[in-house]
Amino acid sequence: MTTATRQRILETAAQLIHRQGYNRTGIQEILQAAGVPKGSFYFYFKSKEDLGLALIEFFGAFWRQQAEAVLDDESQPPLVRLERFFAGFQEYFGQQGCAGGCPVGNLAQEMGDLSPAFGQKLCQAIDFMASRVARVLEQALRAGDLPPGSDPAALAYFIIASWQGALIRMKACKDLAPLDNFQRMVFGRLLAG
Amino acid sequence: MTTATRQRILETAAQLIHRQGYNRTGIQEILQAAGVPKGSFYFYFKSKEDLGLALIEFFGAFWRQQAEAVLDDESQPPLVRLERFFAGFQEYFGQQGCAGGCPVGNLAQEMGDLSPAFGQKLCQAIDFMASRVARVLEQALRAGDLPPGSDPAALAYFIIASWQGALIRMKACKDLAPLDNFQRMVFGRLLAG
Repeated sequence: MTTATRQRILETAAQLIHRQGYNRTGIQEILQAAGVPKGSFYFYFKSKEDLGLALIEFFGAFWRQQAEAVLDDESQPPLVRLERFFAGFQEYFGQQGCAGGCPVGNLAQEMGDLSPAFGQKLCQAIDFMASRVARVLEQALRAGDLPPGSDPAALAYFIIASWQGALIRMKACKDLAPLDNFQRMVFGRLLAG
Repeated sequence: MTTATRQRILETAAQLIHRQGYNRTGIQEILQAAGVPKGSFYFYFKSKEDLGLALIEFFGAFWRQQAEAVLDDESQPPLVRLERFFAGFQEYFGQQGCAGGCPVGNLAQEMGDLSPAFGQKLCQAIDFMASRVARVLEQALRAGDLPPGSDPAALAYFIIASWQGALIRMKACKDLAPLDNFQRMVFGRLLAG
């Protein structure tokens, strides 16, 4: 019961904050949308910042889940998995009307300069995102699907950055073309021999 | 005088909003920091959104100025100019303690889903940023410094996205390493033959 309520607050906060930003979203609004009594917030979270930090883990868990479903599917070659991984997110953003963007990137933009605790946790979240991409690139390198001497970790950070930047343009332009361009440049050029 | 006051409001708003975000920054705070009487804001701007839209042009003008100083310096080969262009911004972010990030990217994250007027103007600003990079890449292609068949416009959008994403990680991690990685991946890999 307790855990279920905490989870409902987190899920509602994730939706609202993904849609309208952390600073624009108040605790009252979250509790009302979640159908949780006002007084009980501080039973689950010490502060709004505490909720925000828990949200970063919540978003990270979503990335991990997708990674386990697609990136770890060893029935497919490594680079095919990676392409499908981003194509899956692209399909999601198509369904969402090109809204939201990367929740971790959004929080980094909003909170990176305002809270060292946020910055540190967001930095770790990006490290984790890149580490999952790097693991697939290591497999591709061992399989001979990447040019010899490729640096999987450096490529992975660069790919995550390109993805987050493509999502920024998607969000401004309300168009999936930036994500198409990401796929074309990453798989047709950056990772091509 | 009128133009000077409007410019002072814009410059102050640019600094405050770059540091703490659009939604966290109030009109009163901007006017107080600019030393402009409260009542006079609406003489220069119709609304906070009107100021925000003018800010996008203000940030775009800064990009244009840097582009004219560095990207148009035909005494240097095109790709050397491009590398210096981003190195100049990297030096700036080093001086700023890795704060701020891309002001256009920040506004896209904050406002892309909340205001169609913002979204449209930010989309145009990113188009403009990419167009200046594409122009240098066209020159590099003609000079034989890029692999034949390279698409300057597609590469330019991808480079801008990678840059904005690298700035997100810089801001979260308070570290210039993401910008070093950007330079290495763009000039050592993406654009290399």
